[in-house]
Amino acid sequence: MSDVFLHEVGMRDGLQVEAGVVPTARKIAWIGRLLGSGVDLIQAGSFVNPKLVPQMADTDEMFRHFAAMGRPRGPRLSALVLNERGLERGLACGADYFCMGVSASETHSRKNTGMGTDEAIERMLATGRRAREAGATVQMSVQSAFGCGYEGRVPETRVLKIVDRFVTEGFHAISLADTAGHAVPPQVARLFRDIHAIDPGIVCACHFHDTYGLAMVNAWAALDAGVTYFESAFAGLGGCPFTALAGGNLCTEDFVHLLQRTGRRPDVSLEVINEVAAEAERFFRRALPGVVHRTGVIPSGRTS
Amino acid sequence: MSDVFLHEVGMRDGLQVEAGVVPTARKIAWIGRLLGSGVDLIQAGSFVNPKLVPQMADTDEMFRHFAAMGRPRGPRLSALVLNERGLERGLACGADYFCMGVSASETHSRKNTGMGTDEAIERMLATGRRAREAGATVQMSVQSAFGCGYEGRVPETRVLKIVDRFVTEGFHAISLADTAGHAVPPQVARLFRDIHAIDPGIVCACHFHDTYGLAMVNAWAALDAGVTYFESAFAGLGGCPFTALAGGNLCTEDFVHLLQRTGRRPDVSLEVINEVAAEAERFFRRALPGVVHRTGVIPSGRTS
Repeated sequence: MSDVFLHEVGMRDGLQVEAGVVPTARKIAWIGRLLGSGVDLIQAGSFVNPKLVPQMADTDEMFRHFAAMGRPRGPRLSALVLNERGLERGLACGADYFCMGVSASETHSRKNTGMGTDEAIERMLATGRRAREAGATVQMSVQSAFGCGYEGRVPETRVLKIVDRFVTEGFHAISLADTAGHAVPPQVARLFRDIHAIDPGIVCACHFHDTYGLAMVNAWAALDAGVTYFESAFAGLGGCPFTALAGGNLCTEDFVHLLQRTGRRPDVSLEVINEVAAEAERFFRRALPGVVHRTGVIPSGRTS
Repeated sequence: MSDVFLHEVGMRDGLQVEAGVVPTARKIAWIGRLLGSGVDLIQAGSFVNPKLVPQMADTDEMFRHFAAMGRPRGPRLSALVLNERGLERGLACGADYFCMGVSASETHSRKNTGMGTDEAIERMLATGRRAREAGATVQMSVQSAFGCGYEGRVPETRVLKIVDRFVTEGFHAISLADTAGHAVPPQVARLFRDIHAIDPGIVCACHFHDTYGLAMVNAWAALDAGVTYFESAFAGLGGCPFTALAGGNLCTEDFVHLLQRTGRRPDVSLEVINEVAAEAERFFRRALPGVVHRTGVIPSGRTS
């Protein structure tokens, strides 16, 4: 089986919340290693305001670097954009895979973008159409899809309505993000089942945070519900170190280890991912959340 | 629903591997708090050689303390014993719930007890019969039931054979322990299904370690497979700090939080468990593995 698609987001969703800014040369080295690890897509950065997110200020330079290398094979690089300005910056430096999204929580949407969800959807759709016209791949995400740190419960009807709008507009690659870490397995199973019922052609990704220790069990529930596209971060990076209520991403090496123990993705090199995770621990000078980069893999291989 | 039985093992399986020995008065205070938390059973210590495990040297004193208090209601206290000598010590100080077991891994069994699995089974059955004659409750466990750090894969037939022997001898309370942390969800589901097929009267407990980040997903798989008796440790305590290859127990507060978010065990006070976990962090002066004692619970309650 190699039916699981892996989107490594640590270089963006991980590094953007770290107080220490990783130098560009080191980022390029880490991405270079990850490109050879066997994962399918690597989020290299975000085209956002460098004054607000200095950790991502060198995203243009990195994309130019990898575009100049001209890689005909291997995984692609994705970037996060929040608006058309970011998209134009991305297109100008050779990016061709854009992730963009809206929050299903009205409060989270307003805090994040200054717009309510409905207005944000229209803006994102316009940005997505422009990216598509330029020949780029577009992934639309629904943030706070499983709950919101401000509002608490987010009705599933809100999520389904947004997904339906994306699909109607021809965007079939959709990611559901558990921004607040509130998801629980039965909810994950139900929501993905309902989304697949909207249109079996949807390629649905999941993006879990480990705020309450549930990223792995939710990812497994998503896999069980037929989801085959996973977003995760090496070392379990992510989550603001200044608040107790943000948690890291699903940890790539821990998740891949589980996949390999159950017969999936034997082609991915955990050794490479573990090395990058260990380097990140040395760089940030603290223990990062994931475990398999410290324990190593179980030597006995597949068990079931 | 209140169908899930919770056995808190942090005071034994957690504290026994910490370099710092918790003073008896503090242990008594922590157990006192846990007695009021709503969990169903608390493992207070082990009757083992105090020279080999100084962290448990005061187990007799603690049982005497709580026996003298005479608690007609509330959760019971359990103790681990490895042999008849330990059992006699336990009976002498008022213990009446004994956990004992054998390893399904021949190598692990020899390293742990100096006996192979078959010999260890006979010794444990003799100890169990003696405990039962004395009117005590007995739980038999199978250690390394999902894999072994020395041997790797442990054939399920070995586990089933041991369980069958326990049941034949009238011991129906059985715990499967993932000592090495090797379990994966499909294996968990299959093994518990096969065990329930031996005898539907078996009360099967599960005991997962988080060595490879899979304790929660395995516990959820066990719940899904009909297991209703869970062993866990507050703060995710457990696992030797001197080796990378031992991991803590399933974290009680993280697991109870998931249970409550899915409508189970609303009677358990996470506030109390979180307080004990936070005290343990202060005592050991380091961040312990669990998360919910730091994040607190999601205020919005049940989501599914």
